[in-house]
Amino acid sequence: MQILGTLRNRINDLLANKIEPVEKPRSLYEPIEYVMSMGGKRMRPTLCLMACELFGNNVKDALNLALAIEYFHNFTLVHDDVMDAANLRRGQPTMHQKYSLSTAILSGDMMMIKAYEYLAKIKPKYLPEILPLFNQTAREVCEGQQYDMDYEAVNSISLQEYLRMIELKTAVLLAASMAMGAMVCDASSENVYNLYEFGRNIGIAFQLQDDILDTYGNAATFGKRVGGDILRNKKTILLVTALELAKDNLATQLHTHLQLPITTQKEEEEKIAAVKDIYQQLGIQKLAQARLDEYYKRAFEYLAAITISKDKKQPLIDYVNTLANRRE
Amino acid sequence: MQILGTLRNRINDLLANKIEPVEKPRSLYEPIEYVMSMGGKRMRPTLCLMACELFGNNVKDALNLALAIEYFHNFTLVHDDVMDAANLRRGQPTMHQKYSLSTAILSGDMMMIKAYEYLAKIKPKYLPEILPLFNQTAREVCEGQQYDMDYEAVNSISLQEYLRMIELKTAVLLAASMAMGAMVCDASSENVYNLYEFGRNIGIAFQLQDDILDTYGNAATFGKRVGGDILRNKKTILLVTALELAKDNLATQLHTHLQLPITTQKEEEEKIAAVKDIYQQLGIQKLAQARLDEYYKRAFEYLAAITISKDKKQPLIDYVNTLANRRE
Repeated sequence: MQILGTLRNRINDLLANKIEPVEKPRSLYEPIEYVMSMGGKRMRPTLCLMACELFGNNVKDALNLALAIEYFHNFTLVHDDVMDAANLRRGQPTMHQKYSLSTAILSGDMMMIKAYEYLAKIKPKYLPEILPLFNQTAREVCEGQQYDMDYEAVNSISLQEYLRMIELKTAVLLAASMAMGAMVCDASSENVYNLYEFGRNIGIAFQLQDDILDTYGNAATFGKRVGGDILRNKKTILLVTALELAKDNLATQLHTHLQLPITTQKEEEEKIAAVKDIYQQLGIQKLAQARLDEYYKRAFEYLAAITISKDKKQPLIDYVNTLANRRE
Repeated sequence: MQILGTLRNRINDLLANKIEPVEKPRSLYEPIEYVMSMGGKRMRPTLCLMACELFGNNVKDALNLALAIEYFHNFTLVHDDVMDAANLRRGQPTMHQKYSLSTAILSGDMMMIKAYEYLAKIKPKYLPEILPLFNQTAREVCEGQQYDMDYEAVNSISLQEYLRMIELKTAVLLAASMAMGAMVCDASSENVYNLYEFGRNIGIAFQLQDDILDTYGNAATFGKRVGGDILRNKKTILLVTALELAKDNLATQLHTHLQLPITTQKEEEEKIAAVKDIYQQLGIQKLAQARLDEYYKRAFEYLAAITISKDKKQPLIDYVNTLANRRE
């Protein structure tokens, strides 16, 4: 784990692009350095490196994969922020806000290309199995973003549709980060599969937890306004479950609140309270929590099936638990 | 060359995505099919397949590369059209115009990913040298687009800056198309280099020719309004050369015309005539034509240096000459 600490610093240095010679034109590359220096948990690169440490010590290739993944992830954030018209990310202006729409498009594109450049640096023998997995994951992340946008425009989606959307949009990249870290350390295909499934289930669980916290989090520590998802009618595990379960009068009430125009602060608070009241009558929080627990449980079953000693798995277990608890 | 005809139909079928099962969500993939069905000369895939035929018969890999290149090229068009606020492409609405900004961004991104998916299909042994060349080319194309946008905002650029910009924005992809087609047919690195340089010089020459035709083309056959570049103060070989050569009174006149606001059709015609008059006093058309001829000459010197029989090169020579003449 000491290695990991050092590597994470190295990742941050590389991502902040503290390299010579400086890349030109600056108008293309400076915005990339801006975004990559914003920080963030670096969860995906960390998981990639930890997966590598489970099976071997091909740190050089895992580091290149970690960088590829982090560039790709941040590329999606830059373009998603344009599509979602988001002005802030991690408390700082988004790329299109700070620079321009054209910058966000083109420097964003360049970030995806940089991801593939890091990918191309791994040992040639791993490329034929890594590249297709990376491509498939990239495709799925785009599909997830498309479903997310499509679902915004409809009144109601099924629970199954919702779970598939968050799987594509967020879980598969976590899964692939770990699978690829293991692949360059010659893990067996069964172990790679189990690690992928661990990541996929953890990824879905993380998103469900975010959904629950947005409505039931501690206002003092949450960082954002509790109830924000309710105000924006955001499709979450809570709303989607409620839409499936609400019948008759409750269904009418819920749809009324979803359609009611909101202007004042007082109306906002009333909407949050009313929707939470409907959730409570339907027992939504518990149902969502039960589903979340199920994904965690399944994740750790896949981890347990991986044929290495429990000792070696402990750092990964600790890290995932830290991430899970930090979200509370 | 019969093979080539068949292959080009196959490319068009594949690009129009006449495949089963239909890819979903349709909101992501249908816009891609729209753009890829618009047609176009398919110059890059054709050059890639012709390069393959020069050296061997690994048509399967060359076909995948051809598709990768055409998806990448069209991805850049979709995103460039957003940045340039262009409403029409090949006489049809651009993607952001027909669908939305978000569609152009996300379906555009997916087109780049599809490019890498086709790339991943080539024989594994070629990947370690093809992927870095593809990445480098993609990076350079983005840099070219950035320079193009940056140069729009300044009054004057040097000839050297202009030539480098068009090299990056258009020539390197032509060059790489041919180089990659040759690489999967086991051409020697010297032959690959010479073919790359052939493509690079041809690519620059094509752009110079477009520049010249925009001002001196035949209005009856040109398809666009002759003089359009002059009206938009577009940096072309003509304007850039004129800015370098014009002194004293002519320089003042040229800068005046560049800054004069234009509103009426009459003013437009006057501006075109006045700038052409300055060009004539400086002998710009001849200078530009001489430079174009130089690039063609150099291109064919590189082609001559390739160690295969002249017979085998003839189809490529014919094709490039057809492209050159079609532009007149």
